Amino acid sequence: MLIVQKYGGTSVGDINRIKNVARRVARFFDEGHQLVVVVSAMAGQTDRLIGLAREITDNPEPRELDALLATGEQTSAALLAMALRSMGYPATSLAGFQARIFTDNAFGRARIDEIDCGRLKEELATGNIVIVAGFQGIDGSGNITTLGRGGSDTTAVALAAALTADMCEIYTDVEGVFTADPRICPKARKIKKISYDEMMELASLGAKVLQIRSVEFAKKYNVPVHVRSSFTDKEGTMVVEEDVEMEKVVVTAIAHDKNQARITIKGVMDRPGIAAQIFEPIGQAGIVVDMIIQNTSEEGITDMTFTVPKADFKQALEIAREAANRIGAERVLGDEHISKVSIVGVGMRSHSGVAAQMFRALANAGINILMISTSEIKVSCVIDERDTEKAVRILHDAFRLG
Amino acid sequence: MLIVQKYGGTSVGDINRIKNVARRVARFFDEGHQLVVVVSAMAGQTDRLIGLAREITDNPEPRELDALLATGEQTSAALLAMALRSMGYPATSLAGFQARIFTDNAFGRARIDEIDCGRLKEELATGNIVIVAGFQGIDGSGNITTLGRGGSDTTAVALAAALTADMCEIYTDVEGVFTADPRICPKARKIKKISYDEMMELASLGAKVLQIRSVEFAKKYNVPVHVRSSFTDKEGTMVVEEDVEMEKVVVTAIAHDKNQARITIKGVMDRPGIAAQIFEPIGQAGIVVDMIIQNTSEEGITDMTFTVPKADFKQALEIAREAANRIGAERVLGDEHISKVSIVGVGMRSHSGVAAQMFRALANAGINILMISTSEIKVSCVIDERDTEKAVRILHDAFRLG
Repeated sequence: MLIVQKYGGTSVGDINRIKNVARRVARFFDEGHQLVVVVSAMAGQTDRLIGLAREITDNPEPRELDALLATGEQTSAALLAMALRSMGYPATSLAGFQARIFTDNAFGRARIDEIDCGRLKEELATGNIVIVAGFQGIDGSGNITTLGRGGSDTTAVALAAALTADMCEIYTDVEGVFTADPRICPKARKIKKISYDEMMELASLGAKVLQIRSVEFAKKYNVPVHVRSSFTDKEGTMVVEEDVEMEKVVVTAIAHDKNQARITIKGVMDRPGIAAQIFEPIGQAGIVVDMIIQNTSEEGITDMTFTVPKADFKQALEIAREAANRIGAERVLGDEHISKVSIVGVGMRSHSGVAAQMFRALANAGINILMISTSEIKVSCVIDERDTEKAVRILHDAFRLG
Repeated sequence: MLIVQKYGGTSVGDINRIKNVARRVARFFDEGHQLVVVVSAMAGQTDRLIGLAREITDNPEPRELDALLATGEQTSAALLAMALRSMGYPATSLAGFQARIFTDNAFGRARIDEIDCGRLKEELATGNIVIVAGFQGIDGSGNITTLGRGGSDTTAVALAAALTADMCEIYTDVEGVFTADPRICPKARKIKKISYDEMMELASLGAKVLQIRSVEFAKKYNVPVHVRSSFTDKEGTMVVEEDVEMEKVVVTAIAHDKNQARITIKGVMDRPGIAAQIFEPIGQAGIVVDMIIQNTSEEGITDMTFTVPKADFKQALEIAREAANRIGAERVLGDEHISKVSIVGVGMRSHSGVAAQMFRALANAGINILMISTSEIKVSCVIDERDTEKAVRILHDAFRLG
């Protein structure tokens, strides 16, 4: 089999762990597999490099920041290849430019356009284990680019797609995808198999196990992804195409996200173009708005509520106040102490009353719902931050995920 | 003017120093010059990376070690470009592969074959200050290579040659090339102008101010090199083609090197092939032999004495003992407590009696000469290590360098 493996920053966090990874890779090689191994930077290294950049300026040139950060993965790739060589295994490391991973030029959040597999296939054909520095590529002009936090996942899945690998294994510091965060929900179970769509929802709802873009890639090219721990040999979670079995389960997992803040603009004149006047300046500031709710207007006056990441709260509030002044709105309210709990499952498509069941469960526990947002396969409720853990446990029970 | 500047590891040793370098570069830019700036890794960084590699294996795969070490210069290049950008100056960093510095594939000590200046000239034409990661290149297959310790000097001179720059400035932590090491010879003077040949001799005799290969390059392409301190604005030392003025001075500088050890094989049968049998295995072990002396033989028996770097002494002694056994020599002696003092000057070509004057000066001071070696423009004497400082001071006086 041709297997692409990806090891995250914790898995290559120090020299001993790199040696452990080398032993695991060697075992797969001994079993007769061809291997492409994608590595993240050693845990802490990316933050250390960002720290150096911040010592120079609060606003580092994105092109140079990418050139700087790319060294982290180059380092761990060389060290892993070295470890394998020292064990007598044929291994060779490739930086993004050598693996010919071509991206657009959106520094810091580049998208992979194309992978030229020539060199990779050559190395595999000569019997080499190929270690690829994750998270990075080059643009059309040969500039070094990076793919954003978690980008190594995308490197791995994109390589698996380009090489039509039999399997993409994502090694991480958890044992797979769980029905809820085991740290706050002791009954949480590891999910054996989950669909691409569900995984994408979970990733966008705050589960950090896979970069969302990597799941999009996996779905697009139908790459089977196995999320598992680098510290055990246990099977993890398979992320695959939806099948009939999955539809029978209504809710697959509970997600929660405390990284939320809410802003309400009260007394907004309900006329065309108002929403644009509020959200354009927020978007221009690079702030990602999650949920947006507009109440039905009374006598031409309405309220507008939306959520942003906590880190952007102060700036968003400032911009909202300016916008409110411009459009003659009444006042602006903000609340940093909220969180979002969500239920996710492809089964929702064919089952009715799932949302109602969620609202009822929360109500029975005395938890007030502040905002609601739904998609085809998820329902999210914004609640008071203090109720987060309780809500997750209650929903886990209510949908019998234990 | 088109100026190539190179800043060593101490000059970019921390973020404040990188900012200082940025200010210096900016000043040259403001004066209207075009600038290509070559940087070393931040002081200590290369050793830190080698330390990581050594934690994995005593004998790291050279290709991977080079990929690892190259990240050091890539880091400082990105940081310097970032600093200039944050000051409002147009700057862009290029790793070796982006600057298209092509080398052979001798990992760890690669030689530059060719530089494709296309990208560099493009960047200069758009008005950019180009920051190039020193010490590195790529081979014909796109593998990352490094040029050996001090390799950034060679990067700078090679770029200056390829771009036919008007000047190559090497910024370091000393103010230039001195008539002797000022730490042990208080009367030592900074040399204003020195010839390529003299500089090459000094570099090979242990002066660490410039990598010897960079001087070869400078001589071959007639690149004027200015060695100066990054901590002051003082003029340093110009390394240029020999001129008539230089020949008038008999001795330009005194060099010394304590990094020497001596091995003597006594009672060697004086027959063809004996020297090869001794020095072949030493060469194969990667040990560089400096001086070799063979006494006139008496009754077909001779002695063979040679010097090696102190770090290689134990291994060389072992190999010499094995060789002595094989060729039936009498015994092997070793001495780690020696050093080499040398006088260097192109004037020696046209002056006679210079060597004798050196021997006389040492003899008058009661310093015993253990070995002698000469070239067209230098005389070296191996002496007892304890006499080093005294010898340097005496020779400095004897040739009126003060």
